[in-house]
Amino acid sequence: MKQRLNAGQITEFLNEVFPGAMDRFVIEDVSPMRARVRMKYSDYQLRPGGTISGPSLMTLADTGLWVALLAIIGREPLSVTSHLDIDFLRKPAPADVVALTVLHKVGKRLAVGDVLMYSDGEDVPCARASVTYAIPSVRNDPPVD
Amino acid sequence: MKQRLNAGQITEFLNEVFPGAMDRFVIEDVSPMRARVRMKYSDYQLRPGGTISGPSLMTLADTGLWVALLAIIGREPLSVTSHLDIDFLRKPAPADVVALTVLHKVGKRLAVGDVLMYSDGEDVPCARASVTYAIPSVRNDPPVD
Amino acid sequence: MKQRLNAGQITEFLNEVFPGAMDRFVIEDVSPMRARVRMKYSDYQLRPGGTISGPSLMTLADTGLWVALLAIIGREPLSVTSHLDIDFLRKPAPADVVALTVLHKVGKRLAVGDVLMYSDGEDVPCARASVTYAIPSVRNDPPVD
Amino acid sequence: MKQRLNAGQITEFLNEVFPGAMDRFVIEDVSPMRARVRMKYSDYQLRPGGTISGPSLMTLADTGLWVALLAIIGREPLSVTSHLDIDFLRKPAPADVVALTVLHKVGKRLAVGDVLMYSDGEDVPCARASVTYAIPSVRNDPPVD
Repeated sequence: MKQRLNAGQITEFLNEVFPGAMDRFVIEDVSPMRARVRMKYSDYQLRPGGTISGPSLMTLADTGLWVALLAIIGREPLSVTSHLDIDFLRKPAPADVVALTVLHKVGKRLAVGDVLMYSDGEDVPCARASVTYAIPSVRNDPPVD
Repeated sequence: MKQRLNAGQITEFLNEVFPGAMDRFVIEDVSPMRARVRMKYSDYQLRPGGTISGPSLMTLADTGLWVALLAIIGREPLSVTSHLDIDFLRKPAPADVVALTVLHKVGKRLAVGDVLMYSDGEDVPCARASVTYAIPSVRNDPPVD
Repeated sequence: MKQRLNAGQITEFLNEVFPGAMDRFVIEDVSPMRARVRMKYSDYQLRPGGTISGPSLMTLADTGLWVALLAIIGREPLSVTSHLDIDFLRKPAPADVVALTVLHKVGKRLAVGDVLMYSDGEDVPCARASVTYAIPSVRNDPPVD
Repeated sequence: MKQRLNAGQITEFLNEVFPGAMDRFVIEDVSPMRARVRMKYSDYQLRPGGTISGPSLMTLADTGLWVALLAIIGREPLSVTSHLDIDFLRKPAPADVVALTVLHKVGKRLAVGDVLMYSDGEDVPCARASVTYAIPSVRNDPPVD
């Protein structure tokens, strides 16, 4: 599918519609149906046992999929997550976590993809997720170049 | 199953091991294999469209299940979420959200349950979740009662 | 929501559009947003360890949700499962399995519900599932009542 | 991880412990943490609308993961699916379906992986699944070469 927005444009858009949303995240790479998003490490995400909290990883998965979707559909603030499931596989290191998203479908009504999350520098994932977004029927599509 | 901790004891324990965890949550009721937990409304959870954010509801589902589990297994800080899946059904009102958890199984290694979440005063859920916790093999079980 | 079809009408419809589909299933009860469906025991469902196979329980969950949905939307053959997730909780007995479905939402495009499955006579579930059906935009709604 | 069984050995084992299980499936390739399994097309899998039934795809996902797992853990009949979730993305063609499994974790107690399913010859998946197997504590590990 054709890509409408690049990493900088998506970051700008998310900061506009959801101020502060990208304080913890860096979009490292976007290509059609794919995105790589980094969640910066910070102490406040920790939970007992010294691991990064589940909700932080869920937020990362949700953000990773949203970034990949916005790259395809453009500046559309009203897409919402309709389903998310996540498996926590390994205790994440106290470090940044990198999320690799692959979209499997961007339909008229639903977009579905998988997200693998890695502690920075590791080659086995600390978590996997799949996420479905519902796309509004009437979109605020921007003029696309 | 026998209940080891009541609402006050669980709140106290969660605040000990995870300071601040309960700032947004109130345990309203706990009985064997069930819990009712309220997430207090606050503006910072909002996302575009004026709805409560998905990660806030995921955190509520995770907390609701944990509360029901701690009631059964006692002061055990090292249980961790191994799986969570959530369906977002309706746009939540800008209001408290109440989570009703039912545990279906508390085994030696895994606990599984469902969580239904309702905007305060509504009789249809805004989200449903199911959550699996992995329970450590060697538990720090406290003397009970 | 208003109920359009009763147990007998749903059985008849499923046998029409999907011959043989109900050979293994009995719709025991249907009420608005709820259904109870029994899967009859037969040896061929067994897998190593003497338990009923996972795919049999998945088929039961899928059928249970479909029955509850058809009761609401009427004779609509083109609704399709878009998501199913299932947790296998306990080894089922070599016996009938009864599925209790509760629908949480029947929207214009999606229907979502939970299914609890019990070995006949047991009071704890052997499996839980949640299922999403996609409902076609243009429906073949029959004259109702 | 080290691979204990090849495609032929896994097929032989599955036919031993679960006669008929592999009548519809061909293990096309196995490598450490990966498997490619083909489900042969047959008319009896069809459902209204002419598509391959959901339960057939769920069985394929379950089988694909099991094959990848057996390659790693060896002749162990008692591993059981503990969780499966599946998204149906596109109407499958009336053709074979090929499942590509990637295992993300094979731990002492749980194995987790993703399965992408493609109608034969297509380059976008008709379904995605993630599957968790519970591995028994005491294994019948064969002598490994």
